[in-house]
Amino acid sequence: MTTYGESHGLAVGAIIDGCPAGIRLDLEAIDRDLARRRSGAPRQEADEVEWLSGLLDGVTLGTPIAFAIRNRNTRPEDYDALRHAFRPGHADYTYRQKYGLRDHRGGGRASARETAARVVAGAVAKQLLAPVEIHAEVEQLGPELENDTRGGTVRCRITGLPAGVGEPLFGKLNAALAAAMMSIPSAIGFEMGIGFQAAAMTGSLYIDRWNPDGTTRTNHCGGVQGGISNGMPVEFRVAFHPVPTLPQPVECLTNDGRLETLDIGGRHDRCHVLRTPVIVEAMAALTLMNYEL
Amino acid sequence: MTTYGESHGLAVGAIIDGCPAGIRLDLEAIDRDLARRRSGAPRQEADEVEWLSGLLDGVTLGTPIAFAIRNRNTRPEDYDALRHAFRPGHADYTYRQKYGLRDHRGGGRASARETAARVVAGAVAKQLLAPVEIHAEVEQLGPELENDTRGGTVRCRITGLPAGVGEPLFGKLNAALAAAMMSIPSAIGFEMGIGFQAAAMTGSLYIDRWNPDGTTRTNHCGGVQGGISNGMPVEFRVAFHPVPTLPQPVECLTNDGRLETLDIGGRHDRCHVLRTPVIVEAMAALTLMNYEL
Amino acid sequence: MTTYGESHGLAVGAIIDGCPAGIRLDLEAIDRDLARRRSGAPRQEADEVEWLSGLLDGVTLGTPIAFAIRNRNTRPEDYDALRHAFRPGHADYTYRQKYGLRDHRGGGRASARETAARVVAGAVAKQLLAPVEIHAEVEQLGPELENDTRGGTVRCRITGLPAGVGEPLFGKLNAALAAAMMSIPSAIGFEMGIGFQAAAMTGSLYIDRWNPDGTTRTNHCGGVQGGISNGMPVEFRVAFHPVPTLPQPVECLTNDGRLETLDIGGRHDRCHVLRTPVIVEAMAALTLMNYEL
Amino acid sequence: MTTYGESHGLAVGAIIDGCPAGIRLDLEAIDRDLARRRSGAPRQEADEVEWLSGLLDGVTLGTPIAFAIRNRNTRPEDYDALRHAFRPGHADYTYRQKYGLRDHRGGGRASARETAARVVAGAVAKQLLAPVEIHAEVEQLGPELENDTRGGTVRCRITGLPAGVGEPLFGKLNAALAAAMMSIPSAIGFEMGIGFQAAAMTGSLYIDRWNPDGTTRTNHCGGVQGGISNGMPVEFRVAFHPVPTLPQPVECLTNDGRLETLDIGGRHDRCHVLRTPVIVEAMAALTLMNYEL
Repeated sequence: MTTYGESHGLAVGAIIDGCPAGIRLDLEAIDRDLARRRSGAPRQEADEVEWLSGLLDGVTLGTPIAFAIRNRNTRPEDYDALRHAFRPGHADYTYRQKYGLRDHRGGGRASARETAARVVAGAVAKQLLAPVEIHAEVEQLGPELENDTRGGTVRCRITGLPAGVGEPLFGKLNAALAAAMMSIPSAIGFEMGIGFQAAAMTGSLYIDRWNPDGTTRTNHCGGVQGGISNGMPVEFRVAFHPVPTLPQPVECLTNDGRLETLDIGGRHDRCHVLRTPVIVEAMAALTLMNYEL
Repeated sequence: MTTYGESHGLAVGAIIDGCPAGIRLDLEAIDRDLARRRSGAPRQEADEVEWLSGLLDGVTLGTPIAFAIRNRNTRPEDYDALRHAFRPGHADYTYRQKYGLRDHRGGGRASARETAARVVAGAVAKQLLAPVEIHAEVEQLGPELENDTRGGTVRCRITGLPAGVGEPLFGKLNAALAAAMMSIPSAIGFEMGIGFQAAAMTGSLYIDRWNPDGTTRTNHCGGVQGGISNGMPVEFRVAFHPVPTLPQPVECLTNDGRLETLDIGGRHDRCHVLRTPVIVEAMAALTLMNYEL
Repeated sequence: MTTYGESHGLAVGAIIDGCPAGIRLDLEAIDRDLARRRSGAPRQEADEVEWLSGLLDGVTLGTPIAFAIRNRNTRPEDYDALRHAFRPGHADYTYRQKYGLRDHRGGGRASARETAARVVAGAVAKQLLAPVEIHAEVEQLGPELENDTRGGTVRCRITGLPAGVGEPLFGKLNAALAAAMMSIPSAIGFEMGIGFQAAAMTGSLYIDRWNPDGTTRTNHCGGVQGGISNGMPVEFRVAFHPVPTLPQPVECLTNDGRLETLDIGGRHDRCHVLRTPVIVEAMAALTLMNYEL
Repeated sequence: MTTYGESHGLAVGAIIDGCPAGIRLDLEAIDRDLARRRSGAPRQEADEVEWLSGLLDGVTLGTPIAFAIRNRNTRPEDYDALRHAFRPGHADYTYRQKYGLRDHRGGGRASARETAARVVAGAVAKQLLAPVEIHAEVEQLGPELENDTRGGTVRCRITGLPAGVGEPLFGKLNAALAAAMMSIPSAIGFEMGIGFQAAAMTGSLYIDRWNPDGTTRTNHCGGVQGGISNGMPVEFRVAFHPVPTLPQPVECLTNDGRLETLDIGGRHDRCHVLRTPVIVEAMAALTLMNYEL
């Protein structure tokens, strides 16, 4: 999958290559995932998927599936103040350092807007992966605040995955999942199974003891051993930091090295953690698509 | 980099492609890293690097650098009991499910032995990356036990890295580091900066506020924003679960579906977390080599 | 670059990743290349490039450039006869064998229509490669016939390329050019420099003898030695077979194994070789973009 | 596959990744291919394959297969004259331009010596591909001369390959074969089926007409249409230019820009075309390994 699109450009979208041919897609399920992604979103995009190629009468052709989601209701003028100022906690500064210029309009390429393309691609992938099921949900999220944002955690569980999926060393399933999750905007931590808790344990407590049928009595490792699935559910957690677009004035850094207090939170997104489970599912599905199941 | 080698085969090693030409390598520094990797190890391999190609009089040619580290002091007969039994917590079972057969001798390909090749390749990479410096150390490790193993955490800090390193979305520096760290044997968690703590914070506490010179007063994000380095030190932590090779009898699963108590810990490795910082450094260095600095 | 699109779907297009930021594109030059690609084409598509992302006010952002070219004037009903029949010399049969189904409308994904996306991407690449210049032209083409198609050859010359471009063994410049050219529809042969003539020569005639300044008196090898450019012009030729869509009835193979004479040439393309130089240039440019210049 | 090794370094070899597990290799067949590669070679290397990993009792483990072939009988002192001079027609100059330094000993990395590693890897691949058969042979080769070298052509035929192998557009089988063949030292031309002859034909002569069983009466296209195999034999030809290491004095370019006549042909290889069929077979096999068959 390759995605494209800036927050306030013409469209976001993706090309999905390597889909099997002859699969009828449930386009309504894809729309439902897009709706999940909008939950609690400040910008109510009327997301409509335009299928540019790869489908004939709703059936995959085996050729690259391309789609576009037009950006509507963009208000680039909202961002004029940011043309010469870097918000704290955003990618404004790093993009500028990397490219020498940036699309200052609402995060540009770094915006969470791009995840709409991932959600569509992931929804396609989830259908192609059946009977594997992927379910993510918010685990921890503080109470809503009047003038601040919140971090949180999401847990995800993949069932129906056979043992033997993953490659030793350079294509480990847990490593691929980690990379996929950490590429979600505002992800800051990842753990398989019991994760950081295992660091404080002894081996005799940690090891997942066998049942005679090859399942294990516990699933501390999260279903992956040596980079390869063991047939137990694959379980992991992702930590998200609070969105740095605060609904209150913050000190920004200007191009010429001054600190200036700006009110940039007009379109703040206090509940962004609520939007992440469907993105986590999408990234997990796209990750699994890279393996032979 | 591509590595090869089983724990008890002839050798482990790697091919490193894409090295610049004309760099004189400090071969003693490489040996020092190998010695760090052996610290506390039960099997005292006399690791000697045989440089097969890519060097002329100690200077890189720009062509692929290949090397081999012979496996000495192998005692494959120690593992006869494992020919038909899967240890709990190991990759024995998953390899068998994936390949239909496996090298039962001491973990085979999944053995931590393979990390010797990574350490050498990483030591080469660290030299090529100067003046970037990478330093990892054990952060948390419980007291040594007489008949059990221990998990722990390692923290790593990369200094001297300019702002602008990383690719948006599909080559994010934090995602690449996550994948690299999670591919280390027994890694089970990864976090940038303050990581999981951020999930419980509010945005106004979390954001790293600017200094006028583009540095930030805190480094909660761990030096990466939007997937791209911001010029602050890159900081992350890795959690390792305890080694599942216990120095006490454990129930194994046999090929024919029985549980059998075996004493497999003859070469147990109670202090494996002590060996991981040099591996963390190596993987970080190899990750950075994929970016233009 | 990744392209998408079927001949008679909604659009063809591409995502170009890895473009440097801050380059102002000459969009008219891109349109001129599209016009060259249409020369002599039976289907006069009004090709209009819709830039979906990656540009701000005509300047590259460094983020993926995505574009779409709508397919207009499609007449899928022209192809109804092909729903159950495979034309000789086309990819109808091979796609069916691979995917189990196919888009029968005018070649679908295998159609030369997809090359419009390559031409646009290549035109972008040519601008980014300046001062390297790429020029291709028809070398050999038989007289036009009233009821038949023609093969031909195209030669291409790349000037301004410094010595040292290419990778030994696995990224040889000549091998990458060969792959790029052979991926053009109806390409059937490729040669560097004097190519097949060299097979009949002696070494003393073949070798390109030195001038004291590092140039050579002849350029038999076509400017690449050991996979790496030597500073002389890079020269190669591509052979194209005649388009198999004949303007006369031909025997097709039906799904149920019968031979049936059909008149499928309504939109025949007798002059397709005339359209190939701009595609050759595009593919050469996209190939060079994979190297550091 | 990744290869390593310079002509006069310690060893050449490769890592082959992605082999299925549980295949017993015929190691004698691999030695026979190595012997074919030595036919007519001036340097009678006693090529012995040392299997470093990936095999247990001659059976593949599914993990990376690494091997080394020691370079024996090296005489680096033969090449002292070349330390400061570039031979015509060799990669001496281009490597120097690319890397700023080079291994001057007998071609270094660019030497045909590296093909020994490819032949071994290819011999493994041929066994894994059964029942597909790959056969290459010299087609055209002038008479042997007392003081000169000769070019020639090799043709190759792949039988037993099912229809449907290859990917549209970006993984075309013919493009992958072209890249593989053009990466063989001294390859200068490639054509599928009738190749350049097709450029002078009309479409009605060119097209391969159907038999009712899906085979075709001719095989002008060489068994690939739209980048995908059609079930007919895959046929192609490769042109090789004469080896530029002439058995007579030639003018070399010195580092300081003078022309100097040197006798560099002590180990000339007048019959190098005789050695290429086994390399062509190896590269074809390694190419096919990248596809699902």
